[in-house]
Parts: sequence; structure tokens; C-alpha cells
Amino acid sequence: MSTDEVIQLAHGGGGRLTRELIEKEIVPRFGNGPLRGLPDGATLDSPGARLVFTTDSFVVQPLEFPGGNIGDLAVHGTVNDLSVCGGEPKWLSLALIIEEGLPFAVLGRILDSVRAAADTCGVTVATGDTKVVARGQGDGLYVNTAGIGRALTEFTLGPERIKEGDHVLVSGTLADHGMAVLSARQNMEFVNGPRSDTGTVQRLVMAVRDFGSAVRFMRDPTRGGVATVLNEIVEGRELGILLKERDLPLAPATRAVAEMLGIDPLHVASEGRMILICDGAVAPDILKRWRALPEGSGAVSLGTVIREKGRVVMETVTGGRRLVDVPRGELLPRIC
Amino acid sequence: MSTDEVIQLAHGGGGRLTRELIEKEIVPRFGNGPLRGLPDGATLDSPGARLVFTTDSFVVQPLEFPGGNIGDLAVHGTVNDLSVCGGEPKWLSLALIIEEGLPFAVLGRILDSVRAAADTCGVTVATGDTKVVARGQGDGLYVNTAGIGRALTEFTLGPERIKEGDHVLVSGTLADHGMAVLSARQNMEFVNGPRSDTGTVQRLVMAVRDFGSAVRFMRDPTRGGVATVLNEIVEGRELGILLKERDLPLAPATRAVAEMLGIDPLHVASEGRMILICDGAVAPDILKRWRALPEGSGAVSLGTVIREKGRVVMETVTGGRRLVDVPRGELLPRIC
Repeated sequence: MSTDEVIQLAHGGGGRLTRELIEKEIVPRFGNGPLRGLPDGATLDSPGARLVFTTDSFVVQPLEFPGGNIGDLAVHGTVNDLSVCGGEPKWLSLALIIEEGLPFAVLGRILDSVRAAADTCGVTVATGDTKVVARGQGDGLYVNTAGIGRALTEFTLGPERIKEGDHVLVSGTLADHGMAVLSARQNMEFVNGPRSDTGTVQRLVMAVRDFGSAVRFMRDPTRGGVATVLNEIVEGRELGILLKERDLPLAPATRAVAEMLGIDPLHVASEGRMILICDGAVAPDILKRWRALPEGSGAVSLGTVIREKGRVVMETVTGGRRLVDVPRGELLPRIC
Repeated sequence: MSTDEVIQLAHGGGGRLTRELIEKEIVPRFGNGPLRGLPDGATLDSPGARLVFTTDSFVVQPLEFPGGNIGDLAVHGTVNDLSVCGGEPKWLSLALIIEEGLPFAVLGRILDSVRAAADTCGVTVATGDTKVVARGQGDGLYVNTAGIGRALTEFTLGPERIKEGDHVLVSGTLADHGMAVLSARQNMEFVNGPRSDTGTVQRLVMAVRDFGSAVRFMRDPTRGGVATVLNEIVEGRELGILLKERDLPLAPATRAVAEMLGIDPLHVASEGRMILICDGAVAPDILKRWRALPEGSGAVSLGTVIREKGRVVMETVTGGRRLVDVPRGELLPRIC
């Protein structure tokens, strides 16, 4: 069978082929209703309460990496998707696909991390499932978490709400999660190597509730990185986004590994950061509130919304401009 | 590492080791709150509406089998868990872990089945996720579905509600799903072989709403089969269950394959049947309503609740009695 007829690894990379897979296979079948526009979570009108609903599978390799493991990663990932959709996370499901031979000691550490992360985030693991597959039919452990939250009524969010002059904020350094996982996978040994930023953004979301409609859009830049999130926001619109290279917040170890491996940090996942687009007038206040929280101490403005049809561009440190595109191939498989 | 220290395939078989895995690793960490008692779904008190929440991963091999595929199996499995927990299924999530090399044609057929099953069940696929793993790190496709339903107020369900003299009903023939998958896996070729019963039980549940508290408990006998469900119900109680072998509803093809392979059909999964325990006085009425529906046409009474401390026993066709225990080993891995 030709490669066109089968799934390729790059279909999972979070870039163009992932997008094609979803546009081709998912949208035609399920694209009406809550899945329209492919948000990270669905908003459900349940009698008496609007709910937010999301799911994510985690296939990160290695299972444990500097700064976290697949367990807390899964909790944070789902809690963060609920949060950036304007939800207050309440309940999680936890489904495990375990490969025969996984040591109980590893499973125990990972489940301890699930528990600790759920406690920190104030969510309840309400239901679960366990499957076991034979050796060579998995890779240690795959975790799926789905989450339910209550929709916060203060927000009206959507990429269609962005306006020229809006500011693009990020809550901290970029790409630390992806670079930490990649370093661990390649057995790079550092004294002070990159550490995953896996963590929750929910307090960052709660902190900006009272800015109401001045907050246009929120998203966590996971698989595919900031470049993918920003391109998805402006795709098909009359507006674009201008980033300033000198304002990109990068931890020294993350920057070093990215340069060593020749990877653009804008293409690399964070797992404890959020992007927020807001009216420029409230940007300083939001940054001030965020910086008062440990998880927002590194918050900065990355750029602004400009009249530049559907494109993300970056003003480089040397004063030029370059296009910021989505990653194309199997840049970083199994980073989350 | 000794086999005691690592996950074995039998931990996924639905029998004793699965139970041990959950008792040892999950209950101590997550056993408070909605997960207490390990129901198939959690009941959540959301303001304005009680919700039911459940999740299941599907790792069935082969992906397509007589009577269904992993796609409709996943929808039915989650819809059925919500239904037997006394919920009206409303929304599903759909998360795919795809192995590199899966033909798009297969993926397309499976997603078509997801869509068709969701339409039949009246549920909306509201959110999703797609991951890709490299060849040899999966086995074609793993599917996770989580589901949300509204709790039906008519029911008060729980295994602790069963009483001596209650009847144990089943909505149709047993073990067809497991036997169909096993036949397909072993490349057995039959003119009229077993066909999976994959399907929804939600109409069967809706049909008995007005019996209220005379309905004590409902469950779908999936992994581990009827034997596992019934043993879980009576475990640690003063009551037991008496089955009559001559009343076991078995399709001829399923019976033939089970005998050929030496497998007890009571240990084998159905995926479109339900067990219901009720006051004996209403059993005939429930059977009558069920038999009026195509999916309940084969409904029968399997046995009764007796004073027999925590045991499930069967009166054999020859008039003897034997203990019906849960399956021990890796009887039927990857049947769902």
C-alpha cells in the first residue's frame, strides 16, 4: 500500500498532517455540533448548568521525564483544556492501556502523580478503565483522561473575537516540556537540562475572570507549539499576528537544546503554559495578576494582532520579518 | 524482574487478576467519592442536573469482526455503561491512538461505524483527540470513549439492594461478542459462525423506568462475562445467586464454538446485553416489555437471588450444583 493510503507517524506530530487527518476523517463525520471549529473542549448545554467536556490520550515516551511523568501530564493536560475553554475543572476519567511487563513500581509512581496532580487541581477522578495488551502491542503505558468542568459565565471566547491591536500574552517560558522529553528520550545528560513545565493553568484563568469580554481567546500551546496555536487562530481571517523574536521567553537550557537539535521552539509543546489574546488596554493588568502567581511569574506579551491576512509573522532580532508556519513532519512524535 | 513485580497479560482479562490490579493500584488512590464501589459509571452532582460519567478504552483484536468493529463497539460500550448506571446517554468523547501504517480505508470504515452507532443511540460525539504511535508500539488502533448522561431520577440502583427471591434477567443470548471475536482472531471460517451482539441496551433501560425501585441493579456483562458480574454483585453479602443451566440462552453457533474451544460461556463478554435484578413480582412484566423490542427478543430469567453467602451457583442440566467462579487467567485478552 502506498504511504498515501496509510497513517504515517507524521499524522501525529501536531502539524499539517495532523490537521489533514482531522479535516479529512473527523470533521466530515462529527464536525457538526460541539465539535465544530475543533475546540479543545466542547461546551454542552445541560439543563441547569453549561458544561465543558474534553478528552486527551497521552503516549509520551519516556513515561518519566525531568519535571513530571505521564500521570501528572495527563491530569494537567485535561485540566488545562477545560480551563482555557472557560471551564472550571471538576471531574476526570482515567483510562489506562498497559503493556504486559510494565513494572508495578513504575505504575505506582505514575498513579501517585495522577493523584497528587488531581488534588492540586481540585478535581476528582470519578471513573476509570484498565486494559492490558501483550508485549509489543503498546509501549509501557498509554493514558486517556477525559474531563468535565462547569462553564464559567464570565467568558465569551473564540478566535473570531480577536481584533487588530489586541495583545498576545503567554504565561511563561516556551517549549520546556517538549525539550525536556526529547532530552530524556535521547539520553542527554545535563546538570541543568530542560525541565518540563507540566502544570495547571487553571489559577491563571480564574485570575482573569473579571476582565470578561476583554479576554478574546485562551489556549494552551501543547502539541505543535505556539506556532500551531497562533496559525489556527488567524487561519482564514483578515487578521494576522506579529511576534517579536526578542520577546520570546525561553529558559536557557531549553534554548540551548533547541539550538543544538536545530528545532524551532515555536513548534514545541509546553504543558503548563497558556496563550491569552486580549484587548491591549487590559494586557498590563493581566500580566500583573499572572506574575503574582508562581506559575505566571514569567508571563510576557509575545506580540500583537495586526492586519495581515491569516499569517503569523515574526520580527527577528536583526529587524527582518519571517513567516511563522506550522510544523510539517513528524517533528516530535510522542511528546505528550 | 519477577512476574509478581510486573503487569501480566492476565491483569487485563477481566477476572481475578484484573480485580487485584484495581484493588491494589486504583482503589487506595482514587477509591473515595464517585469511584467507591467501582461502578461502571460515576454519578456526579452537578448544579441543576445529576450526571453520569463513564470511560472505556477498546483494544479489541481484530479491529473488524463478524457483527461489528472497534468503532461501534466503543460507542455501544460507553452508551451501555451510562444506561445501566441509570443514565440517559447524551455526549461522547472519542480518542484514537493509531499505529503508523493503519490503512485509511480501515480507519474510515471504523469512523463510519462510530458515526452510525452514535446516531442510532442519539448521542453526540462532542470532543476528541488523535495520537499516532510508531509501528510496533500499538496494534492498529486503540479507541477510548468517555460518556456523559443525565441521571434518570426513577432509579435507585445498587448491588446492596438485592433481596432473596429477586429474579436475575438477561436481555438475550450470552457470549456472542466474545465468541465472534475469538473466532475471527483464530481465522475460523464458518458459514453461520458466531456474530457479535454489539449494540445498545438503552431502550431496554428506558423501557423499565416506571418499575422504579422494583429494579434493584443493572449491569452489562462485558469483560469477564455473566459470571464476573454476578460474583461482584454478591461478593461479601449474605445472599447468593442460583442459575439454572437449562435456562442459559446460548445461540447455537456460540455454544458450538465455546464447546470446541473448551471455554465457559459464562466467562465470555457480551456487548449488547444487560443483566437486570428485580423484584420477582415484576419480572414477567419486564420480560414482556423487553421481548417487544428487537434487542430484547431473547430475554429470559437466568435465576434467582438465594440465601447462599456470597456465592453464585448453577443447577446443572443433570440436577447437580456447581460453583460459578470468575475467570482466573488471561482467558480472552483483547476481546473489547
